[in-house]
Amino acid sequence: MKIQKEYGITARKGDNLSDWYSQVLLKTDLVDYGPSKGFIVLKPYGYSIWESIKQIVDVRLKNSGHQNAYIPSVIPESLLRKEEVHFSGFNSEVFWITKAGDNSLQEKLALRPTSEAIAYYLFSNWIASYKDLPLKLNFWNSAMRAEIKSTKPFIRNSEFLWQEGHTVHTNYKEAEAEVRFILDLYEEILADYLAIPALKGTKTSKEKFVGALATTTLEGMMPDGKALQLATSHNLGQNFSVPFEIKYLGSDNLEHFAWQTSWGISWRLIGAFIMVHGDDRGLVIPPKIAPIQVVIVPIYKKEQSNQNVIPKSTELASELTKAGIRVHLDTRDEITAGWKYNDWEKKGVPLRISIGPKEISNGELEIVRRDTLQKETISQISLVKRVIELLDLVHTSLLKKANEALESRTTKASSYHELKEMVQKQVGFVSAGWCGDEKCEISIKDETGADIRLIPFESNNTWNSEVRCVYCGKKAETVPVFAKAY
Amino acid sequence: MKIQKEYGITARKGDNLSDWYSQVLLKTDLVDYGPSKGFIVLKPYGYSIWESIKQIVDVRLKNSGHQNAYIPSVIPESLLRKEEVHFSGFNSEVFWITKAGDNSLQEKLALRPTSEAIAYYLFSNWIASYKDLPLKLNFWNSAMRAEIKSTKPFIRNSEFLWQEGHTVHTNYKEAEAEVRFILDLYEEILADYLAIPALKGTKTSKEKFVGALATTTLEGMMPDGKALQLATSHNLGQNFSVPFEIKYLGSDNLEHFAWQTSWGISWRLIGAFIMVHGDDRGLVIPPKIAPIQVVIVPIYKKEQSNQNVIPKSTELASELTKAGIRVHLDTRDEITAGWKYNDWEKKGVPLRISIGPKEISNGELEIVRRDTLQKETISQISLVKRVIELLDLVHTSLLKKANEALESRTTKASSYHELKEMVQKQVGFVSAGWCGDEKCEISIKDETGADIRLIPFESNNTWNSEVRCVYCGKKAETVPVFAKAY
Repeated sequence: MKIQKEYGITARKGDNLSDWYSQVLLKTDLVDYGPSKGFIVLKPYGYSIWESIKQIVDVRLKNSGHQNAYIPSVIPESLLRKEEVHFSGFNSEVFWITKAGDNSLQEKLALRPTSEAIAYYLFSNWIASYKDLPLKLNFWNSAMRAEIKSTKPFIRNSEFLWQEGHTVHTNYKEAEAEVRFILDLYEEILADYLAIPALKGTKTSKEKFVGALATTTLEGMMPDGKALQLATSHNLGQNFSVPFEIKYLGSDNLEHFAWQTSWGISWRLIGAFIMVHGDDRGLVIPPKIAPIQVVIVPIYKKEQSNQNVIPKSTELASELTKAGIRVHLDTRDEITAGWKYNDWEKKGVPLRISIGPKEISNGELEIVRRDTLQKETISQISLVKRVIELLDLVHTSLLKKANEALESRTTKASSYHELKEMVQKQVGFVSAGWCGDEKCEISIKDETGADIRLIPFESNNTWNSEVRCVYCGKKAETVPVFAKAY
Repeated sequence: MKIQKEYGITARKGDNLSDWYSQVLLKTDLVDYGPSKGFIVLKPYGYSIWESIKQIVDVRLKNSGHQNAYIPSVIPESLLRKEEVHFSGFNSEVFWITKAGDNSLQEKLALRPTSEAIAYYLFSNWIASYKDLPLKLNFWNSAMRAEIKSTKPFIRNSEFLWQEGHTVHTNYKEAEAEVRFILDLYEEILADYLAIPALKGTKTSKEKFVGALATTTLEGMMPDGKALQLATSHNLGQNFSVPFEIKYLGSDNLEHFAWQTSWGISWRLIGAFIMVHGDDRGLVIPPKIAPIQVVIVPIYKKEQSNQNVIPKSTELASELTKAGIRVHLDTRDEITAGWKYNDWEKKGVPLRISIGPKEISNGELEIVRRDTLQKETISQISLVKRVIELLDLVHTSLLKKANEALESRTTKASSYHELKEMVQKQVGFVSAGWCGDEKCEISIKDETGADIRLIPFESNNTWNSEVRCVYCGKKAETVPVFAKAY
């Protein structure tokens, strides 16, 4: 038989985030490693979280006029090469199919690293007139990018689940409005469902999506002071519509090249909330995406014959279910209540209820919050009402804590020396003036390991004519945010 | 600009099913062809149907204790070769990844033709004791099988969307019960949601899933007299658990190999209902999976100033939406009502409502059923009630018609001459005695083009000691059903 794996989380989050993270993933049945390097398996507990996120995003996209579709996983080489800058950006990561059975293919097929090339080949056939626009599509699928070094489940994998949105418009303004609408939508979902705050802004030319005119981004802060890109929304301008010939007949009866956007979020968001909210006991899952929101642990001794603990627990569980709450009743016989407490804490269930003969005779029960481990005894009559309140409180307090952490890890550097020191200490996000020259950007990256994560949209507000480039001392154009990143 | 494609369906279903089918797919915006042979694109209207089917199946699987998960798209060659029979069955259809960027991979990776090999590699690590069983998992993903010849959208593609279920049990009996539970579930969903009847039974050894102990199947009948396999559910016995070492410690404290099942349905079901229910005007979509169940066409002349047609139509649409009905209000200005009627008939929307000034002043509206084209005028007050009734009636009558078609295409042959003639005329399903010898099965297939689609579960009831093998004349063991098939 297999050797029983060590049960609890032995790494401490504050000492070794990376070890802690791997242990949490494996010991809570979220994830397993696949047989090929960089490929992971999303086990049912993990998949259920992804289903929740997917459902939330899907509804919001549909309500804002986006439609789902499915396009093939494979892209002929010639098509992928059509937009050269785009191709050069992905070339080294592309998995190539060269054979079917024992036969070599006439043309290599790329596994989709992202679907711009194949989608836009199709769009050029679908769009004829301005009446066909805007076209707003979304694809739920998996993307494949060969990640050789430093793979990390959810954060960097050779295959990942995501959604990729692709829209086509008649003009730049409408495309840019879509880009910002989506970024705001992502920001809202991150805060409202995953309790993750983020900085919002634009990528530099160097860091933008290959082929895009401009990339906007949401950047989160992890507990080790490293940034994590959470979502991006790209204005593609006409960079793809020209090579792919996406043209429409305007109301002016003339032909025009269309304007495009693309954007996406992936299962990386799962990795993000694990790092942001977890603690030494294991996962802390934000209530709205938790597969189980409330676990009920009945307390009883086997030998006690006169028991109504199980029937009462079942009754309470069904009350909660009727109220739309995801509840699980843990009736396992072979383990103790204490063991169950540890188990559900590790698995990050937001609320735990315990109920035994004493509580039953008092008409009471005990609720424990996973995030604070605070206990309270409430009357059974107020169960549903209090659970709804507490789930809401847990969410609010996770978001508050995460906001405080983000703030405490956001600072300014007024000299290059200061910037270097801060980056070396991995304090988090560091704002500093920048002249706008890519040479300075590259030098800073090479010398400190930090790159420009984003130029905040409100950068103009912090900028004034006194601000100098932290590297070359010339007049600054913007005040971007630097950080090391995943 | 693009040449405007011919708008209506010009092929007749009864004359040329294949042409009719292709036209319907393309001219109703369900599907497009991808840039690589055999790969299709599911456009929003088609994807929405797949989402409905997925949702129906998903809820039923979850309610019966199955959990979703995601496993990688790629399978290392060595793993796929582990069960030799299985591998030999898929070998010629496997797409192989041999390169990542410019580098050759050390080991080729297969794109999943199906996930048995990789799933069971994982299961062997997940299962230790009988307490871990049954394990009942389901994966929603796409499978890839290089289809070189006679590809047909939804029916035979190089990539298809599907669900694949994989379960592990402690004993044969429980596995067999799961196999039959799933087949019954598929049969019910086919009838209750897609209005498609099917024959139910077992595949012969020759036709079963490669690697399985036994395959059970649902076989549908298409209007050209060819059978279409709609769903399969396999009892894998211990054929995979032995090579993949899926062992568990029993309550007897001894190690045992586990018993397994696998089963699936794919987007082929979309192709099936199109062929079964469609007519010369285009699609006829069964109400429960229709992206739009009711379309409202307001009737008005632009020049008429005193109009309340649009406000009234909007009001009716919102009444229907509130009742949970998927409704679309067609307010396009540039086309006539007649053109809209044709358009929505082609797209197979179950009910069409039209309302103009006359109906408004009478407090009435007109409803037309897509399946029968029957019209009725009803009072606006009874709208929701009548729409719900009619959607139900449309479903029932589609199923009744399909049942009649299936019956009229199910017959018996008492001699080989008769069987040959029937198969040649493509009359449909033909029952005939069979000795059980694969030689006779192969000869019949070679000489007539028909194979054994299934041995009905109730075959024993129709069998008696008088029945002879239609080919060799020896005593029959069963009375299978023969047909040409897609």
